[in-house]
Amino acid sequence: MQLHRSTIADHNESLLKDHQRRIQYLRSEVPRVDEVLPLLTDLQVAIPSWALGTGGTRFGRFSGGGEPRSLEEKIEDVGLLHALNQSSGSISLHIPWDVPQHHAAIRTLAAQHGLLFDAMNSNTFQDHPGQAYSYKFGSLHHVDKAVRKQAVEHNIEVIRQGVELGSKALSIWLSDGSNFPGQLNFRKAFQNTLESLQEIYAALPADWKLWLEYKAFEPNFYSGTVADWGQSLLFVNKLGPKAFTLVDLGHHLPNANIEQIVSLLLMEGRLGGFHFNDSKYGDDDLTTGSIRPYQLFLIFNELVEGMDARHMSHSRDMGWMIDASHNVKDPLEDLLQSVEAIKLAYAQALLVDRKALQEAQAQNDVARAQEILQASFRTDLRPLLAEARLQAGAALDPLQLFRQLHVRNSLIKERGNTAVATGL
Amino acid sequence: MQLHRSTIADHNESLLKDHQRRIQYLRSEVPRVDEVLPLLTDLQVAIPSWALGTGGTRFGRFSGGGEPRSLEEKIEDVGLLHALNQSSGSISLHIPWDVPQHHAAIRTLAAQHGLLFDAMNSNTFQDHPGQAYSYKFGSLHHVDKAVRKQAVEHNIEVIRQGVELGSKALSIWLSDGSNFPGQLNFRKAFQNTLESLQEIYAALPADWKLWLEYKAFEPNFYSGTVADWGQSLLFVNKLGPKAFTLVDLGHHLPNANIEQIVSLLLMEGRLGGFHFNDSKYGDDDLTTGSIRPYQLFLIFNELVEGMDARHMSHSRDMGWMIDASHNVKDPLEDLLQSVEAIKLAYAQALLVDRKALQEAQAQNDVARAQEILQASFRTDLRPLLAEARLQAGAALDPLQLFRQLHVRNSLIKERGNTAVATGL
Amino acid sequence: MQLHRSTIADHNESLLKDHQRRIQYLRSEVPRVDEVLPLLTDLQVAIPSWALGTGGTRFGRFSGGGEPRSLEEKIEDVGLLHALNQSSGSISLHIPWDVPQHHAAIRTLAAQHGLLFDAMNSNTFQDHPGQAYSYKFGSLHHVDKAVRKQAVEHNIEVIRQGVELGSKALSIWLSDGSNFPGQLNFRKAFQNTLESLQEIYAALPADWKLWLEYKAFEPNFYSGTVADWGQSLLFVNKLGPKAFTLVDLGHHLPNANIEQIVSLLLMEGRLGGFHFNDSKYGDDDLTTGSIRPYQLFLIFNELVEGMDARHMSHSRDMGWMIDASHNVKDPLEDLLQSVEAIKLAYAQALLVDRKALQEAQAQNDVARAQEILQASFRTDLRPLLAEARLQAGAALDPLQLFRQLHVRNSLIKERGNTAVATGL
Amino acid sequence: MQLHRSTIADHNESLLKDHQRRIQYLRSEVPRVDEVLPLLTDLQVAIPSWALGTGGTRFGRFSGGGEPRSLEEKIEDVGLLHALNQSSGSISLHIPWDVPQHHAAIRTLAAQHGLLFDAMNSNTFQDHPGQAYSYKFGSLHHVDKAVRKQAVEHNIEVIRQGVELGSKALSIWLSDGSNFPGQLNFRKAFQNTLESLQEIYAALPADWKLWLEYKAFEPNFYSGTVADWGQSLLFVNKLGPKAFTLVDLGHHLPNANIEQIVSLLLMEGRLGGFHFNDSKYGDDDLTTGSIRPYQLFLIFNELVEGMDARHMSHSRDMGWMIDASHNVKDPLEDLLQSVEAIKLAYAQALLVDRKALQEAQAQNDVARAQEILQASFRTDLRPLLAEARLQAGAALDPLQLFRQLHVRNSLIKERGNTAVATGL
Repeated sequence: MQLHRSTIADHNESLLKDHQRRIQYLRSEVPRVDEVLPLLTDLQVAIPSWALGTGGTRFGRFSGGGEPRSLEEKIEDVGLLHALNQSSGSISLHIPWDVPQHHAAIRTLAAQHGLLFDAMNSNTFQDHPGQAYSYKFGSLHHVDKAVRKQAVEHNIEVIRQGVELGSKALSIWLSDGSNFPGQLNFRKAFQNTLESLQEIYAALPADWKLWLEYKAFEPNFYSGTVADWGQSLLFVNKLGPKAFTLVDLGHHLPNANIEQIVSLLLMEGRLGGFHFNDSKYGDDDLTTGSIRPYQLFLIFNELVEGMDARHMSHSRDMGWMIDASHNVKDPLEDLLQSVEAIKLAYAQALLVDRKALQEAQAQNDVARAQEILQASFRTDLRPLLAEARLQAGAALDPLQLFRQLHVRNSLIKERGNTAVATGL
Repeated sequence: MQLHRSTIADHNESLLKDHQRRIQYLRSEVPRVDEVLPLLTDLQVAIPSWALGTGGTRFGRFSGGGEPRSLEEKIEDVGLLHALNQSSGSISLHIPWDVPQHHAAIRTLAAQHGLLFDAMNSNTFQDHPGQAYSYKFGSLHHVDKAVRKQAVEHNIEVIRQGVELGSKALSIWLSDGSNFPGQLNFRKAFQNTLESLQEIYAALPADWKLWLEYKAFEPNFYSGTVADWGQSLLFVNKLGPKAFTLVDLGHHLPNANIEQIVSLLLMEGRLGGFHFNDSKYGDDDLTTGSIRPYQLFLIFNELVEGMDARHMSHSRDMGWMIDASHNVKDPLEDLLQSVEAIKLAYAQALLVDRKALQEAQAQNDVARAQEILQASFRTDLRPLLAEARLQAGAALDPLQLFRQLHVRNSLIKERGNTAVATGL
Repeated sequence: MQLHRSTIADHNESLLKDHQRRIQYLRSEVPRVDEVLPLLTDLQVAIPSWALGTGGTRFGRFSGGGEPRSLEEKIEDVGLLHALNQSSGSISLHIPWDVPQHHAAIRTLAAQHGLLFDAMNSNTFQDHPGQAYSYKFGSLHHVDKAVRKQAVEHNIEVIRQGVELGSKALSIWLSDGSNFPGQLNFRKAFQNTLESLQEIYAALPADWKLWLEYKAFEPNFYSGTVADWGQSLLFVNKLGPKAFTLVDLGHHLPNANIEQIVSLLLMEGRLGGFHFNDSKYGDDDLTTGSIRPYQLFLIFNELVEGMDARHMSHSRDMGWMIDASHNVKDPLEDLLQSVEAIKLAYAQALLVDRKALQEAQAQNDVARAQEILQASFRTDLRPLLAEARLQAGAALDPLQLFRQLHVRNSLIKERGNTAVATGL
Repeated sequence: MQLHRSTIADHNESLLKDHQRRIQYLRSEVPRVDEVLPLLTDLQVAIPSWALGTGGTRFGRFSGGGEPRSLEEKIEDVGLLHALNQSSGSISLHIPWDVPQHHAAIRTLAAQHGLLFDAMNSNTFQDHPGQAYSYKFGSLHHVDKAVRKQAVEHNIEVIRQGVELGSKALSIWLSDGSNFPGQLNFRKAFQNTLESLQEIYAALPADWKLWLEYKAFEPNFYSGTVADWGQSLLFVNKLGPKAFTLVDLGHHLPNANIEQIVSLLLMEGRLGGFHFNDSKYGDDDLTTGSIRPYQLFLIFNELVEGMDARHMSHSRDMGWMIDASHNVKDPLEDLLQSVEAIKLAYAQALLVDRKALQEAQAQNDVARAQEILQASFRTDLRPLLAEARLQAGAALDPLQLFRQLHVRNSLIKERGNTAVATGL
């Protein structure tokens, strides 16, 4: 389903008067809003191919309808999101769920939708048809060299696929771990994993990055072989300058201070990117910003401060991705909400009065530091995001337009009610 | 696969001498061991039909082989466990995964294996073929009366199935909950659930019990409609004398003191039964006793003390069940390990010097109270369990015998490598 | 230190123009703001006497200066807060830290500051000079009847003190619990506590309420005798219609859904009041709204919905209190921030489009339900709180005025740098 | 209070017969027990000077009696423990709580009790009389260089004190952190801390080690500047070969896999030592082994495996210390229990069938790996510990003897009922 420019224009026209009143008021209250507009416009959040269909849990899955049946339809869905918000300008593929038949055709299709190919994701947490060895007991950390080799080769194949598509990063999430005390020798598991990662790293093109995700638990429930930021950092430091840690917000033990982790990884020059989502208990994979919006803002506060301190480009020098499971919402609506929440937190962070904050910190004026952060968080910046969209040719209210256009119904008509996105 | 008596006898013969030395030593150290032997023999732990095959997570499932393909084969597997340990004398069925074709035949088959039918489990956490309404947004708590009615009728049908089989309890686990703030009106969800439960309760035969499980989270990640023991207790108190709370060890928030919950539910006369498993993070469904064996002992310590205070029969007045997911072990081996861990904790609790403990408590002699509990926990009671098995005609070392007989290989030969137990 | 009306008037005059622009804009965006103004004005948050000085941890305490040296000075401090925000119109005393010499004089002093006496707090978590028995092993749950009796009598004495002052509620927080397995018989501890509470309840004047707080852990680290809402509810149900549960936001296990607990306690007619604070790990006693402002809003969302469903008066039918420890901030600044955060969350909850939310819930339109809640949360309602203050004769910006007046310096001059508030 | 050799001899004589029966049985069951005896004898657990008196929480402290009033009395108490168990052969001092008047005399006194001086502990988490700057907002991480300098100098002074006493390690626990978002710039806090640590490191004698503890939270409740093992490892790697991470079992987020952390720190050559205790919720500082004895065993399992892999001496190449708070038990009894639990876990780990475990791991035989570990944990090794004590001239049952001798009563008679150990 393709969106006509005129559809968006009509939508914007109908909301313009109200919008202009709001943005005008905001400009009067926060003079710097126009300064940050280009930054907001530039930030693009990659959509993972596996988040376009309904997700599930080990207890079941309740299909929505109209899910994409092919890589082409996934690209169309992301294209639609991008048309609506001009903020989702790339797609992150997952191999083997998204192996293209014809790479050139796929690249052309993506380009037609204004999309790039973000990080490529390998999969050694499941067994795939025709595979010689099982990953039941892990992949890159496996006690058996043959299994490790198979997993290494799969990752190298994913790089190859990515090269064809113009991707520049390999994102590795390992489910490797153990369910019971005694199952693993932790040290050997680490060393096997390191050796495997080194072989993959060696196959990385010069302009590529390797992002190593960590996760505290699930699907293994006793230990994870890359279980926290400290372990991921150990690995990437041993790998080399193209290796970085990737932070998924849901992959921590209860009460972890993620914003501090972000700050320290940036300090070490080893923060590669994000998988955004939200959670209350574990890796709940809920809509970003739906549970702890203030934490999301605090994370962006560290990102802006830390990237500026290293003179990094916010939009280009970090991988921004969503990783979520849409179990009870329309996946496309959920993604629109997530992207909005991410950019809202980014906008709030950009508008923090950083000079005042530094002064408050220098004086240990804790109450004032809190006031400064909360002032930015409390300011209603939704009109600013709308303005950024307006200027970029997107919809003033993407979710409203999505609903007015009955997009889901159209997709169901086109694709049927029982299609299941590959990988779900 | 049926076990010959002589197989067990041969096995026991080969281990007898060592066993006798150990039990003799234990008798000399702990004179009361023979007193508790009959209690140990009586305690039977029900095996859930869904735990006989390999379990999985939302990320995947790695099949073992030789999984039971039918209810009949599930009964055979439990029969085999029971022959090995004489401690797994019942099976807990799950509808619709285990709907019998011919109830009489199934009862006969179970009787041949010395098995009873423990609590029946309903399933409204998944959609089943041919179902009019979806449980995507819950079942007994659903905003739509028609959905609730369907779920109520399913539960009543489960009771009917259970009556045919000689079961005496309905075990209800509701996945009903919400993933996002605002999704539910908590009060209305509670009241709808209560109304639904009352309709089910009304259909309960006079000699049946209803067990209401609670669970903190998963598959919903914001709220659960029966989320903790307090909520379950509210429900069962409003339902009537045949309603009880069921405790699953993995269904709590981090750090919960489960043994205290057990004590208070017993005090209130509302503890109905257990789903045993172990966990480190959430509802990890690991082998009972594999992660926190001391906690398991402390729970049994409360059970023995509290049941004795109410003059309850340990074996008959409580539902003892396993609920686990066997992702990386042979399910039958895992179940043997779990039953052993449960009975070991029970034995340790039976041998606590209760009079001394009461004295220590009356004097706030905390160090001594700890010594008393740990003395029982530290005592090696494995020979006592072996003796109980020996006297009951079971194997001295069930796991060793299971392996020596190459049971899994036989099952694979018989059932194939790719069979998947129904419901998995 | 007393604030002149003219001081506030001058302050407001200086900020008035900006304020009027903001409130005018808000009125144009949210027409209902004027409807909720009276509710906002009415809500008064009690200040606990022990929060007026610098708090500490077991590792130490870093005094600020100018702390109140007497009950009179505590009342003056609350009077100052109330003059600044007209939202802190009562004080919650703690016995024996705040035993008045002359009740009439204290009542007059409070009245001069426009203050009432909120719930009285007893203290059986510490030993007090001259006390016959120690609370080392608990108080109301103690194995020794003589200790329980002493603790009961203390609570009755607290009621007596409260009657003299015009208070109408007794707030009981029990630290009773255990540090080690075996230390307590949980059932007997419950029953002893119940018996003790019944004796206290019997001494309650007809128009008084008893609020029973619960707490998961600390200062005991194995079990708490009133450890969660389920236990508190069991007690208050057994006590009678004047007994209610009190919720302290920091007293839960990790990840607890507090808003659901609030909803269910309201449903049961057993929610008596709140101790507001914020936390990341345990009972951190941080400034309300400083860590999880969205959770605070969700709690108020349940409060407004649930109280309205029971036709309760928001301001009169619930106990609103702060309970915090000000370790690194000026306590008075911290309290101003907390009250502001509480009223902001209340305002956000009042302005939720409840009709739309009900519709969304009735249709399981989860994405829309989230949009509705977040729209209210994202709206910048700080001008509305300022307007409520302006109309009530308080300061438009209490914290700014507090700083401009150099209140802390004045207090230090008056009281010295080393005064320590009683009880700290 | 000094223990006569004959007292111990008499005690042992009275228990000898029973003991010999038990150890003989154990030898018949576990032939390797005699091999590990020397290792058990060698392992000495340092007693921290601050754990000899009653501890408390922020809510209060309930004194026991007979607490040591001076460094000399602390040494006497550790001497007594060591006489009882021959396993507590060193004391870990805390400056400024334990500044000796005459170093030579103190060394002589310690030598008379057979005690060495283990790691020295600095204290910058409290303000001390006469100190120029406050640590309210931290010490080594402070925004003000003058405060950092003061804290650095204190640490250097602690080293000086230690040199006088023959200690060989400086143990640094920093409470530095923040209570509120915005309070700190995390990166600058890290860099300030690193600079401070480098200055301390430069003052370290050639044969000394620096141990850097980490702690997730408390007394700061938003961030910790050395909050997890990853952060500690970053620091010690930047410091140099004499810097190591110290693990306190209670300093982790909920559900952390501590044994894996131990394994990885050993792999990196950066594990310096332990603070043993146990906990259910946070840094509860309970008796070691009282809550999660199996976890303690698993930690020792990694220690034995990992130290052997690096050819380290168990007793000499690691710092073994207790860090606990004795709130409801006699501190000396608690310490006897803790040392016993530590050595029991060590013995269990030593007797793990490591060859069989490696085979099971190599075959992914998870059930067998569990059996191997649990077999060692389930074996009752208390007689082995008793035998090690017997051979070393200690008491067969230290706790029993402590009670029979009415040690506490003697100490109360000597020191009074209200003495408070310095630092408590």
